[in-house]
Amino acid sequence: MKKRYLLAPGPTPVPERVLLAMAMPILHHRSPEFEPIFQEVRDGLKWIFQTANEVLLFASSGTGAMEGAVTNLLSRGDEAICVRGGKFGERWAEICKAYGVVAHNIDVTWGEAVDPAAVREALKKHPKTKAVYFQACETSTGVGHPVKEIAATVRENSDALIICDGITGIGVNDLPVDDWGIDVAVAGSQKAFMLPPGLAFASVSARAWKSAETADLPKYYFNWKTEHGAHLKNQSAWTPAVSLMIGLREALRMMKEETLPAMFERHARLAEATRAGAQALGLELFAPKSPATALTAIKGPEGIDTGKITKTLRDQLGVTIAGGQSQLKGKIFRISHFGYVTRFDVLTGLVALEIALQSLGYPVKLGEGVKAAEERLGL
Amino acid sequence: MKKRYLLAPGPTPVPERVLLAMAMPILHHRSPEFEPIFQEVRDGLKWIFQTANEVLLFASSGTGAMEGAVTNLLSRGDEAICVRGGKFGERWAEICKAYGVVAHNIDVTWGEAVDPAAVREALKKHPKTKAVYFQACETSTGVGHPVKEIAATVRENSDALIICDGITGIGVNDLPVDDWGIDVAVAGSQKAFMLPPGLAFASVSARAWKSAETADLPKYYFNWKTEHGAHLKNQSAWTPAVSLMIGLREALRMMKEETLPAMFERHARLAEATRAGAQALGLELFAPKSPATALTAIKGPEGIDTGKITKTLRDQLGVTIAGGQSQLKGKIFRISHFGYVTRFDVLTGLVALEIALQSLGYPVKLGEGVKAAEERLGL
Repeated sequence: MKKRYLLAPGPTPVPERVLLAMAMPILHHRSPEFEPIFQEVRDGLKWIFQTANEVLLFASSGTGAMEGAVTNLLSRGDEAICVRGGKFGERWAEICKAYGVVAHNIDVTWGEAVDPAAVREALKKHPKTKAVYFQACETSTGVGHPVKEIAATVRENSDALIICDGITGIGVNDLPVDDWGIDVAVAGSQKAFMLPPGLAFASVSARAWKSAETADLPKYYFNWKTEHGAHLKNQSAWTPAVSLMIGLREALRMMKEETLPAMFERHARLAEATRAGAQALGLELFAPKSPATALTAIKGPEGIDTGKITKTLRDQLGVTIAGGQSQLKGKIFRISHFGYVTRFDVLTGLVALEIALQSLGYPVKLGEGVKAAEERLGL
Repeated sequence: MKKRYLLAPGPTPVPERVLLAMAMPILHHRSPEFEPIFQEVRDGLKWIFQTANEVLLFASSGTGAMEGAVTNLLSRGDEAICVRGGKFGERWAEICKAYGVVAHNIDVTWGEAVDPAAVREALKKHPKTKAVYFQACETSTGVGHPVKEIAATVRENSDALIICDGITGIGVNDLPVDDWGIDVAVAGSQKAFMLPPGLAFASVSARAWKSAETADLPKYYFNWKTEHGAHLKNQSAWTPAVSLMIGLREALRMMKEETLPAMFERHARLAEATRAGAQALGLELFAPKSPATALTAIKGPEGIDTGKITKTLRDQLGVTIAGGQSQLKGKIFRISHFGYVTRFDVLTGLVALEIALQSLGYPVKLGEGVKAAEERLGL
């Protein structure tokens, strides 16, 4: 019998309630039946983004919303600062380049968080900077950047817009968009929203809307103004991903039942337990100083390609985790612990890791990782 | 008891088999489990597009693929011809404008098909034209444009690329992309593909790829080259809409079981029956000379706002059809008859129409519309 367990940082597992909601007969999006769904989704997104501003929805994956956060805010030749500490930081810089925005990159060692002082320096060096782009969580390295501090630093030193890729952040840990003064936060359905991929979100502040007035970079599908006008009537400019939106309504209901503090606390505890478990097995964390809450990046033991670890987990044990990307390929593996994930899922992941490591010849005392995790979980 | 019937031109009804396939636990897209799904989907798309070229997939609605068919083929200041005979023809022109492409528009009276001679003239008048954009089916007016003739006309008179919005065309009627020399055909999941919205497709010919080499319009999310490179490895550049792709595999299997000729024949027969039924009720077709196969646009009877017809069908009878858009609001209504639709669905639509018209005071002999349709269907 094959039973599969998904502990990768997106797509995360989709709850049965959500799968069933999406399996109901399709609705027409230009109908009075769909409007209350759209309204509830809009309200729910504001709640989880902790913002009073409209959160725009797009039928795309997160990268589409990232692109919109460049094209709707800037004009050709504008200057921006991009924090590059991994694959997703690089993506901000790539999008800027594709659209003729001059990106000043803050290159951060992969596995480390950006120092807000580096942001301050970059702003001083490039006083014309119109926008600062960074990640809440750099999924490729398992690093959590200091979002609050970065936002505060930008505000104190500049008029630049603050754009946070919260794709693996919103709904994972406390990220109060309005309180922290984040102008645009981007998110995606296949992360803490517990949905299949295919929906992206972007909250837009009044300051950001002001920039959008003059931003002349070309756009059509991701045009925020067109979309915003439609949203206010509980519609979308283009045909929306109806089934995913129905799933989103259900997922938001589940999140409301759990409450934000309980959700953030659960994720934090699972993260702590995973780190403790890995360390108890003698493994080294890849981002020990500023580990993300969403996932834990772990270095492969000396001499073992981490591709072998993820492959053993997946093919022999049915547990899907993620390996390293780009320069980290073969060097790290990543266990995810957010979304529709409980302590038993995380313990399953650790048990599987113990078994896999042993079979790969790494000396493991079976149960040691699990024990450490259990202790942290207060089971 | 409320039971709903969906006869709108997208989303079309989603088969139970497809809904159930999508309700299975989510898969990780970077996994060996997902690769054969992607491979089967790629093969199936080539089959339904009747092309040997790669068909690219995007997590977006159809408009996203339309945008890509401008940004990946043209450069700023390039000239294009857009056939504007409805809301979707206008969209081609809008996208060109947004990206600084000079659009020469062929304005066609709404409800009529473009005359290939008009395309020839436009090409003569604008010899620098790099691309000709048009619809296979203009969903807003229920018109089928003469795709084969347009394509042939362009080829005979110019080197311009031939780009066909086949969103309500591919899978509806015979549209052999390679045979007819269509360089790019665009489609969307919520149409003949019998899926929820959220996936878009674009076939790309060798000529189109050549243009893509030099096209300098900015793009990132919809960058074809990036996507193509990933597809060849059964991957996508950005996180794909996993559940919709699993649904697509199932839908393609259903289409293969039916076969292309049977599917085209079914759609054609349902279209004929619907037209006969409407005319037997004394109603006038909006596009009598070149009616689309996918849907039938019908004029409202003198003195009756068609919004009342669609509302009565929807709210009192549970049957969702579409009204008129933009300048046609209140003037026409549209009954769809493609995708997961059989003769009984079409007859349901006609019965509902008879009841609604009677209740709105239009003189109807109950059963007359259904009778005429039945005769055409050879029931």
